[in-house]
Amino acid sequence: MSTQSRPLTPSNVREAHAIIQPYIHLTPVLTNTTLSNLASTAQSPDTLKNTQWDGQKPAQPKIKLFFKAENFQRIGAFKVRGAFHAVLRLIAELGIETVRKRGVVTHSSGNHAQALALAARTLEIPAHIVMPSISTPSKIAGTQAQNATVHFSGSTSQEREAVVKEVIEKTGAILVPPYDHPDIMLGQGTMAVEYVQQVEDLLKADKKLGVHEDGKGLDAVIAPCGGGGMLSGNAIALSESTIRVFGAEPSFEGGDDARRGVEAGERITSVKTLTIADGLRTPLGEWTWKIVSDKTKVAGLYAVTEQNIKDAMKLVLERMKCFVEPSAVVGLATILYNEDFRHLVQKEAGDEGWNILVVFSGGNTTIDAITKLFAPVSPTDAKRAEGLVGKDGQRVAENIAG
Amino acid sequence: MSTQSRPLTPSNVREAHAIIQPYIHLTPVLTNTTLSNLASTAQSPDTLKNTQWDGQKPAQPKIKLFFKAENFQRIGAFKVRGAFHAVLRLIAELGIETVRKRGVVTHSSGNHAQALALAARTLEIPAHIVMPSISTPSKIAGTQAQNATVHFSGSTSQEREAVVKEVIEKTGAILVPPYDHPDIMLGQGTMAVEYVQQVEDLLKADKKLGVHEDGKGLDAVIAPCGGGGMLSGNAIALSESTIRVFGAEPSFEGGDDARRGVEAGERITSVKTLTIADGLRTPLGEWTWKIVSDKTKVAGLYAVTEQNIKDAMKLVLERMKCFVEPSAVVGLATILYNEDFRHLVQKEAGDEGWNILVVFSGGNTTIDAITKLFAPVSPTDAKRAEGLVGKDGQRVAENIAG
Repeated sequence: MSTQSRPLTPSNVREAHAIIQPYIHLTPVLTNTTLSNLASTAQSPDTLKNTQWDGQKPAQPKIKLFFKAENFQRIGAFKVRGAFHAVLRLIAELGIETVRKRGVVTHSSGNHAQALALAARTLEIPAHIVMPSISTPSKIAGTQAQNATVHFSGSTSQEREAVVKEVIEKTGAILVPPYDHPDIMLGQGTMAVEYVQQVEDLLKADKKLGVHEDGKGLDAVIAPCGGGGMLSGNAIALSESTIRVFGAEPSFEGGDDARRGVEAGERITSVKTLTIADGLRTPLGEWTWKIVSDKTKVAGLYAVTEQNIKDAMKLVLERMKCFVEPSAVVGLATILYNEDFRHLVQKEAGDEGWNILVVFSGGNTTIDAITKLFAPVSPTDAKRAEGLVGKDGQRVAENIAG
Repeated sequence: MSTQSRPLTPSNVREAHAIIQPYIHLTPVLTNTTLSNLASTAQSPDTLKNTQWDGQKPAQPKIKLFFKAENFQRIGAFKVRGAFHAVLRLIAELGIETVRKRGVVTHSSGNHAQALALAARTLEIPAHIVMPSISTPSKIAGTQAQNATVHFSGSTSQEREAVVKEVIEKTGAILVPPYDHPDIMLGQGTMAVEYVQQVEDLLKADKKLGVHEDGKGLDAVIAPCGGGGMLSGNAIALSESTIRVFGAEPSFEGGDDARRGVEAGERITSVKTLTIADGLRTPLGEWTWKIVSDKTKVAGLYAVTEQNIKDAMKLVLERMKCFVEPSAVVGLATILYNEDFRHLVQKEAGDEGWNILVVFSGGNTTIDAITKLFAPVSPTDAKRAEGLVGKDGQRVAENIAG
């Protein structure tokens, strides 16, 4: 997309933050005593029955939780950060006239599509969004309401990329990918500039919120990992700090591709999972793999089950009164239910404990979707209702980028 | 309950605020462009078909919305304000030793019970909560987790009051009613002390949030009305200001008892409604009636349908990403869907428009309840599932205090 490739440094994240600040919300950092207490309580041995931790002594780490609520961000997700940054960089490099003449295009149908459409509308640039024709009508209407031109395609990534190519040939539109680009990664990382300061301010106002008596800030951050743009953005932003960065993924149908790839030492390029964390169904890209697989930048990757995600989501909605999408809670689910992560914190943090920031990535779900998610129906029926499983029971979608 | 009766004045609300401040959260005031735009857009004439406004020209008032998010309050609802105020006043009057010896008691099973239990636990006072034996197990467990003693009763208000009487005779506990007492009303009104200042601060930071070019603050407040403690508290707090106070109620099965009572000039003392706004199923009390029926204090009362409540709730969850209970959104539903209110605003506010604050009273609902609320099942089935309709199809609960 853009002609230059900016170095992936904390100072470039800070610069990105300065550039996009007028266009985004400063989302709050929330705390919650009930959830911090729950995180600091051992799971019952019964809960670990029939898991890989069966028979192990449950960990009891000491944790205070902070939540960066990007579900309150514009369009309901962090994606506006990367989209505005990428488009503003294009304008700076090519000139507004050229960008307005050519327009921008993406093949994402999720939060990135809405984010790019908003950035384009704000900066008066034509936007083309390629969406599978099976997308929910509300999603299509929402994108059109942002003045974007919707182009329909088949559901596979190949079919969608073919339509993107057509659009580019016809219009000269510039591709703004959903995650695998330095400007997108630097843009998503801007949330770290905010939350590091916000947590310090909160602790200054009330030291009891954190675990450290000297009022020291964050020890760790945990963020969802789909395409890896946001996780790597945070890792870049914090790469010169002492704050550890962890990634969380759904394990369902191999959705923990980043974790598996890092373990094997090779990027997994194709994922076919229908996890309820639908923003995390994508594999890492070439750019994001470089950061996510760099152990000096991302300290570890952890996976959680569909049930873990639902349990965490229930807690966030009912206890925190915060409306989030399933993808948003995989970090919290890891902290509450993944014994590998919990043992790590117990060992590394010791009696003092850790202040951990959890990124709530977005809140773009609906009451309808939640009703289906939590209603006692068969999983296949639920998927069919979402348009993800055809009448023959075969999958009809794959690799849908968040 | 308490031996003195404090005058219902704005200065006593400010004093209540000073007293309870260490024990409550300063909940945020939120804004939302989409909802303000929606409120400022006329409803389609089609929407008004088969309503009392059929054939009328839809109103198009100019409105900027502010939301006091008491769903983020401790125990998830505003009720802690009144409960802490009442208990702290008891301590001031009778001495901590006496109150600790006698304890406190209430017959509410809803948010007030949890609020009183929290206040009592915090101040190390025994609390007795009388609940119908058909209460949901999670509600009973939640109250017991606050160290309160739960006493079971039948479901009618008579049966519950009989058990309260027994508890008082046995233990000497002091009754802290859910709404009908000056100290409760003054306590609930403390939110106004906060939001008046918060809205001014928001407008100082960004004048575009409001309708007035001179940065003038609120024109009106709309709050849910069940027993009337919170509505009258707000009305008392603002009685020396130019800010108008309105009340909102559910119309289902006569749930708009305050509106009907004021219209008839006589308090309605019994209500039997199973509205989904379950915090608003109660009639006004003697104290709250005095304020709510005083037109110099409460400028008007409006009713909304069950569908209006569900539509508003969907908007708040999906657009604002804010988890609220049905009772919390009757104010917003009035602004969006009640043409009488909308015409009033259009007429009184004119081209300039109004800044209106909506009280989100609480967020104590569950994913289960929402799933039932929005799932396509018969209303009787849904009520039976809630334990509100017996096997014979008869009501088993009435006048359950919020």
